[in-house]
Amino acid sequence: MALRTYEEYLESLRKMKSNIYKFDELIEDVTTHPATRRTIEGHGATYKHYNDEKFGPMITTKSHLTGEPISRYLSIIRSAEDMYANSDMKRLMFQLTGTCTGGHCAGWTALNAMFITTYEMDRDMGTDYHQRFLAWLKDAQVRDITLAGALTDPKGDRTKPPHLQEDKDVFLHLVEKREDGIVVRGAKIMICGVAAANEIFILPGSGYREEDADCAVSFVIPRDIEGLTIVETRHPSDTRDEEDGFDNPVTEGGITQAFLLFEDVFIPNKRVFMCGESKYSLTAVLNFIGPYRAAIGACVAGQGDVKIGAAILTARTNGLSSKVFNEKLVEMHINNETTYGMGIAAAARGKQHESGAWQCNPLLANVNKVHVATLPYRTSNLAQDIAGGIAETGCMPSYKDFESKKYGHLIKKYMKAVYSAESRAKAARLVEWATIGCGVPGCMHGGGSPDGAKLVIRGMANLEEKVEIARKLANIKEEISDPAKKK
Amino acid sequence: MALRTYEEYLESLRKMKSNIYKFDELIEDVTTHPATRRTIEGHGATYKHYNDEKFGPMITTKSHLTGEPISRYLSIIRSAEDMYANSDMKRLMFQLTGTCTGGHCAGWTALNAMFITTYEMDRDMGTDYHQRFLAWLKDAQVRDITLAGALTDPKGDRTKPPHLQEDKDVFLHLVEKREDGIVVRGAKIMICGVAAANEIFILPGSGYREEDADCAVSFVIPRDIEGLTIVETRHPSDTRDEEDGFDNPVTEGGITQAFLLFEDVFIPNKRVFMCGESKYSLTAVLNFIGPYRAAIGACVAGQGDVKIGAAILTARTNGLSSKVFNEKLVEMHINNETTYGMGIAAAARGKQHESGAWQCNPLLANVNKVHVATLPYRTSNLAQDIAGGIAETGCMPSYKDFESKKYGHLIKKYMKAVYSAESRAKAARLVEWATIGCGVPGCMHGGGSPDGAKLVIRGMANLEEKVEIARKLANIKEEISDPAKKK
Amino acid sequence: MALRTYEEYLESLRKMKSNIYKFDELIEDVTTHPATRRTIEGHGATYKHYNDEKFGPMITTKSHLTGEPISRYLSIIRSAEDMYANSDMKRLMFQLTGTCTGGHCAGWTALNAMFITTYEMDRDMGTDYHQRFLAWLKDAQVRDITLAGALTDPKGDRTKPPHLQEDKDVFLHLVEKREDGIVVRGAKIMICGVAAANEIFILPGSGYREEDADCAVSFVIPRDIEGLTIVETRHPSDTRDEEDGFDNPVTEGGITQAFLLFEDVFIPNKRVFMCGESKYSLTAVLNFIGPYRAAIGACVAGQGDVKIGAAILTARTNGLSSKVFNEKLVEMHINNETTYGMGIAAAARGKQHESGAWQCNPLLANVNKVHVATLPYRTSNLAQDIAGGIAETGCMPSYKDFESKKYGHLIKKYMKAVYSAESRAKAARLVEWATIGCGVPGCMHGGGSPDGAKLVIRGMANLEEKVEIARKLANIKEEISDPAKKK
Amino acid sequence: MALRTYEEYLESLRKMKSNIYKFDELIEDVTTHPATRRTIEGHGATYKHYNDEKFGPMITTKSHLTGEPISRYLSIIRSAEDMYANSDMKRLMFQLTGTCTGGHCAGWTALNAMFITTYEMDRDMGTDYHQRFLAWLKDAQVRDITLAGALTDPKGDRTKPPHLQEDKDVFLHLVEKREDGIVVRGAKIMICGVAAANEIFILPGSGYREEDADCAVSFVIPRDIEGLTIVETRHPSDTRDEEDGFDNPVTEGGITQAFLLFEDVFIPNKRVFMCGESKYSLTAVLNFIGPYRAAIGACVAGQGDVKIGAAILTARTNGLSSKVFNEKLVEMHINNETTYGMGIAAAARGKQHESGAWQCNPLLANVNKVHVATLPYRTSNLAQDIAGGIAETGCMPSYKDFESKKYGHLIKKYMKAVYSAESRAKAARLVEWATIGCGVPGCMHGGGSPDGAKLVIRGMANLEEKVEIARKLANIKEEISDPAKKK
Repeated sequence: MALRTYEEYLESLRKMKSNIYKFDELIEDVTTHPATRRTIEGHGATYKHYNDEKFGPMITTKSHLTGEPISRYLSIIRSAEDMYANSDMKRLMFQLTGTCTGGHCAGWTALNAMFITTYEMDRDMGTDYHQRFLAWLKDAQVRDITLAGALTDPKGDRTKPPHLQEDKDVFLHLVEKREDGIVVRGAKIMICGVAAANEIFILPGSGYREEDADCAVSFVIPRDIEGLTIVETRHPSDTRDEEDGFDNPVTEGGITQAFLLFEDVFIPNKRVFMCGESKYSLTAVLNFIGPYRAAIGACVAGQGDVKIGAAILTARTNGLSSKVFNEKLVEMHINNETTYGMGIAAAARGKQHESGAWQCNPLLANVNKVHVATLPYRTSNLAQDIAGGIAETGCMPSYKDFESKKYGHLIKKYMKAVYSAESRAKAARLVEWATIGCGVPGCMHGGGSPDGAKLVIRGMANLEEKVEIARKLANIKEEISDPAKKK
Repeated sequence: MALRTYEEYLESLRKMKSNIYKFDELIEDVTTHPATRRTIEGHGATYKHYNDEKFGPMITTKSHLTGEPISRYLSIIRSAEDMYANSDMKRLMFQLTGTCTGGHCAGWTALNAMFITTYEMDRDMGTDYHQRFLAWLKDAQVRDITLAGALTDPKGDRTKPPHLQEDKDVFLHLVEKREDGIVVRGAKIMICGVAAANEIFILPGSGYREEDADCAVSFVIPRDIEGLTIVETRHPSDTRDEEDGFDNPVTEGGITQAFLLFEDVFIPNKRVFMCGESKYSLTAVLNFIGPYRAAIGACVAGQGDVKIGAAILTARTNGLSSKVFNEKLVEMHINNETTYGMGIAAAARGKQHESGAWQCNPLLANVNKVHVATLPYRTSNLAQDIAGGIAETGCMPSYKDFESKKYGHLIKKYMKAVYSAESRAKAARLVEWATIGCGVPGCMHGGGSPDGAKLVIRGMANLEEKVEIARKLANIKEEISDPAKKK
Repeated sequence: MALRTYEEYLESLRKMKSNIYKFDELIEDVTTHPATRRTIEGHGATYKHYNDEKFGPMITTKSHLTGEPISRYLSIIRSAEDMYANSDMKRLMFQLTGTCTGGHCAGWTALNAMFITTYEMDRDMGTDYHQRFLAWLKDAQVRDITLAGALTDPKGDRTKPPHLQEDKDVFLHLVEKREDGIVVRGAKIMICGVAAANEIFILPGSGYREEDADCAVSFVIPRDIEGLTIVETRHPSDTRDEEDGFDNPVTEGGITQAFLLFEDVFIPNKRVFMCGESKYSLTAVLNFIGPYRAAIGACVAGQGDVKIGAAILTARTNGLSSKVFNEKLVEMHINNETTYGMGIAAAARGKQHESGAWQCNPLLANVNKVHVATLPYRTSNLAQDIAGGIAETGCMPSYKDFESKKYGHLIKKYMKAVYSAESRAKAARLVEWATIGCGVPGCMHGGGSPDGAKLVIRGMANLEEKVEIARKLANIKEEISDPAKKK
Repeated sequence: MALRTYEEYLESLRKMKSNIYKFDELIEDVTTHPATRRTIEGHGATYKHYNDEKFGPMITTKSHLTGEPISRYLSIIRSAEDMYANSDMKRLMFQLTGTCTGGHCAGWTALNAMFITTYEMDRDMGTDYHQRFLAWLKDAQVRDITLAGALTDPKGDRTKPPHLQEDKDVFLHLVEKREDGIVVRGAKIMICGVAAANEIFILPGSGYREEDADCAVSFVIPRDIEGLTIVETRHPSDTRDEEDGFDNPVTEGGITQAFLLFEDVFIPNKRVFMCGESKYSLTAVLNFIGPYRAAIGACVAGQGDVKIGAAILTARTNGLSSKVFNEKLVEMHINNETTYGMGIAAAARGKQHESGAWQCNPLLANVNKVHVATLPYRTSNLAQDIAGGIAETGCMPSYKDFESKKYGHLIKKYMKAVYSAESRAKAARLVEWATIGCGVPGCMHGGGSPDGAKLVIRGMANLEEKVEIARKLANIKEEISDPAKKK
């Protein structure tokens, strides 16, 4: 099949069994239901632009397995340039859809992490996980699926490891190992874009010790697999998805995050890529967060591009020139290019893994993660500053009120500044959407918390090397080590 | 009557005519309708706590007109201590209701601004506005009304003053001056808490020149006055107000902001406090923003107190000790106390007006306004950082899903950490509510934009005095004035 | 005598014995020696301006002991207004001298701390310390002395309390208690302005336990007391003090900090205010840091005023209008007014001690201390940004090179922009002086470190109260206390 | 000759004529004079480490002209990897010398800028500048010279272009064009490391128009050329360079910046690379600031490494564990890696020029320049925070006082904490040196001001593209362009 059309993609989703719920209701057709259609529209942007002269080359690449053109989201990252293309594609996706298409992103990152991890497992243990993985991947590329990825376990009482939890299921775990496959139980939570996905790639949620080997599982499943129930979570202003009009101003994109509930789900062996090998669980996680935390800087830069554009539009429809906001606009650009650039740097200073994959520099990637947890918030702050009171919390009457037969004409009369009332409302709603509404993705904790990133930075900081540099410069002869901690 | 009970307050609202709309529907009973009952609950917190041993003295004071106990929100600020009490009351109101009770706040600030302005008008022009005002105020105190305040005009094309606008109505203006009163037309927009108000105090939206004298109007009206239509605006996640359960976790408070549409409204003379005296319009505005921009620092500090509490609750229900977040919590406190403290400072360095009113220091008040436009955002950022992924964008299934017969037990099973799933969800929803949901007030642009505050700061900065200080220190003999601008 | 003239002040210093050293040389006359004369000029600004119409009333007050006019620096702070006056005086002193006159400041704060502490000691223990103190104070007021203050001990190994130190002398301590007085040994380090002082007020360096009672000593000494050796420390670019010309552009002020070495110094009883009463050592320290950390915000605001003026002067002599730097200048003002305002707030929300003294609000004072450790650095950064490369690190030829017979004319030719080369050099040197030169005071750690202030903030933060506020708002029924720390 | 030894380098400097002055005195031997020997030591670090196993490969590369090993500082940057190596070398140089070796840096950047510029000139105009340049470069590589670079003109009245200046010499300009060469007059100011240089590469200071063609000159000269007088500028605490002991704790590095005074200097044609071609002056400048503003991020990261090490050393010698400062140390690392990383990103997203040179991405490079003007200041702030009062302004007695026969033993007694008094003093002096002393380079304005960088960012920001993205997302049908500016 190779590259599918958007229509084929929608068709493939429609053919799947219904197992997604929101507000305690089963979603029959994800492609039309208000809770899910925007995220499908957004993830589908790839299919829509495959043949676009400008965007097509950014979204597709050549399979290193088959030599055929494939979605970049199903490719193996094999060079720094592949990572730059990754960053550029993600920034583009935000520009096209206004928000996160996190199914693509996590699915792709997950498969890249397991490309390396299965390689190492086979190398060290003589298993055939890598071959299984490659077989699945080649097929996935041919079928041109949309793939989501899932790591986060509920985790229960965080002071305890899995085997000491009262309820073992708070970590997704192996229940049974059969001849032909495995059975798992538990949950993955806050998983992006599954409604838009054909399949979901499961990774262990963290590095586990021997005694928690049952949690070291990785596999890939069709989204509608038997035994899986999916419940979509809320997001800010999410019921506007169900309304008519422009109060949710964006129709081409939307974000969903779901709880995946596994009630004894069976996965056939050929789709299982880790099954109890606890010492490789950390490998998988680290190889996930590397490219993830690097590229997320491009995501929030793309989001920042939207905030810049939306803020200017609102200012202009408010009757103000964007020039009066030069200083703020420059600061917004600096924020954007900083997160974008740090991801590029992490890629540039990465290294080739023996499997052929490219590994980002973890120090720079984690520094970026910290920026991603702060700079976009500042950018939102500035967007609201520029756009004024109607955008700050979307302080305007609803679309229904705009269209009111009784007083709609007055709302429009008073909303009009230089351009039409409708343009002004839409612009301000877009600022609201991107800074305090449906469009805000969970970029602070997505892919791990900034505190986690700081731990990595601290771990890689090589303090003693810097102490030696300084000691040498200052001609200090004594060894100077840490006294006991006290303050 | 003097101090009313909460029940009497509700009763007074129920007796008014219905003229408030949202989603193109008339709200019959504001005290029970989901769109308005929370803001009434919040504004009503004063009535509920009049007799509270701890809070009562913070919320009430003695009328300087009658010597009787009155709501502090109907008092004249006559000393720095009155302003401190103002700050403390506003911080308390946020702690009690979780958000802004901006009706009280703007109404009170408006009446204080006009106390001074009418005094000056009578002094300079021999009018009787001040006496009218005092008569109304005394009566309002006795009736113990809840008063909202309204300044902001739609403003139309911002590059033009009112008299050059295509549509004259984009500034609320005088249409007719009759023997017994005046007729006005136009709108006031983004007005807080009118649904909870018995009356609304109208102020000019900015300082006007002679040619725009028609816009220099101030008066007070019953909320349900003939010819006034009120349309409530949206706010983030506002349809949760209509839902059952804890997805909007707060029932004791809520914020509303409305568009007030004046279609030839008649106001009798005794309620008119300015009527074309353009040169006093700026006086009114400046005396509004002084106490407003000082005290708003206490508001956002109270909101910050809620964010701190909510973040810790979520961390604990996530299974983490608040101690691991010490550094972040200290930063949150610093932000809170800075905005609170700067308001106190503006009050402390204020001065007595000849009318007996206390005027805050405008430089310090405007510096505070700039902090209010940034520090609370940082505090929100930290609250989300501490509270984790489920709080950042409220990434959990809805209350309906919690209660689902089909899978609700699984949602609860996986949401449970150390405390109950419900406590955890409520805590996280409170963080969402306060940082990216219904609870976020428009504090950045409310009472004017931070850029406006910076203009005031620049205007009061006294650069040449500082240049002289430096010139003297450096023993520079020449006069050093600005060369022509170029860069 | 009451208020002395500047000449009388200088005379009093000249009459003292020489016991101050720098660069291993004894300073014979502190009033003329380059290492000390600027700080005397600065501290002497009070005497110079006693009769100034504008500044006199800011620097003097009425003694509550004698009713006579005295230096404010020898007064007891008895109201919030006294603290505002304190802040205003300190800001003025920076404006007049360009830098810290820390002798005055620490001496005064020390005497105020011991006013309260001796009051409590007498109240609780029936001692006569307070009477001794008042007798000394009255006399000091009459003699109109300049008083320095000293707290900081060397502290040795910081993981150990005094009695476990190898070398007991690293905390100033009691060696002998005689009938007529006490003998002390040890050191106080980094002590401001002693060269400009007639007397020095000694306080315990921290709160001590019973076993370290020997360190709980407070007394006041003439600067030239037998057994005391004073060594002045370096500061950035300090040898410029010894040069001719304008490379140190400021002659009216300068900062010194010294090590005070006590080799068995005898102090007569009437000048001893604490002598082993360990439980009052913390009282003394807390009552020092209260007003100190409040008022230091005004100090750095005054310093910021100088930076603003100096930056503009440099920009103008560079040929640029200050208008192009509006945004930066506003930020500098915000920084200034924030530290100033927070000190005012700490005063305003203080309370009356039973001794009659006014105690600042410790939470707000400590928040201010944290700002003082960051905002002035940002202001310096902005001053250098505005003033350009010649100011950033003072990147210009020396005064000697300006005056070179060989090429001085060329230096002047190329330094000239719009105003004279000399004015430009002086302006840029002033920026250098104030941001990276002799004029930079140790405001970050002076009066305790920002980390110490954060500990106080954390201690006063009342987290559980905020948790309860949030719990009530979210209708959480369970008690939610901290799980065991782990992350 | 190829790679020289350190001794040969020193010898080459000693052989040159003396034309450098400081404090109105001629420096006879730059290699031993206190004002210049540290910068020579620093620049000489390259020669010292050519054969070092670890550092050698970072400092040398292969000439693309001769294939021989050369100093990287004399190479042409021909790929992103060359730029990474550039960044890594510069970070290393800071680690080895503690500060800026700006002669190397500016010289190298200048030659790279003129490699491209002469290429374009020859391509467009058929001149032979590029050949001249290559001939000189090949020879310079063989001779292994140290090369400084000079751009900044005095500029006089900044509101006027060169031809409108009263004194034409405030821009270095062509005086005469002879058969065999050119004669120039004027000055270049604030030029780094010329004392350590064998030759100096001159570039136009900005882009000039036709009418200022005389200022469009580029050439390379021996440092001791006839008619050139060099005056070294001051830097903070620079007279410590002349003292014994550790008050300037660093002997292996130091920074100098000089005024170069050209009094009718003759340059032979083969060393002239631009001579009146005004339209290429901007090309030269832009190709200078590209790599310069990218790589400077690595410089300040290296400096930040020193600050981290120095802060920890001081904390430890103060008796404190570095662990108590974890949060601050992580922030310092984030600052370091951000400036480092953004430079890498600018390189990675650069492009190949047709001459074979690699051009950095100007948007990312200029964003980095803004970070360089703020983040290192914050890092200094943190270093002082960690290191305490003795480091903040170096508040300790001088080395002479340490060694005093009279009281040196007491200074040492009281400076000792856990490690020796001397180690503690050296560590604290290093913090002082790096944050407020001789070691602070002019990185904010060096290579242009942050405001200049912001202008470039604004110019490249492509606002309308972002407006279109937002307009499309929000389904706004109207074209929305800027109304007239007004606010």
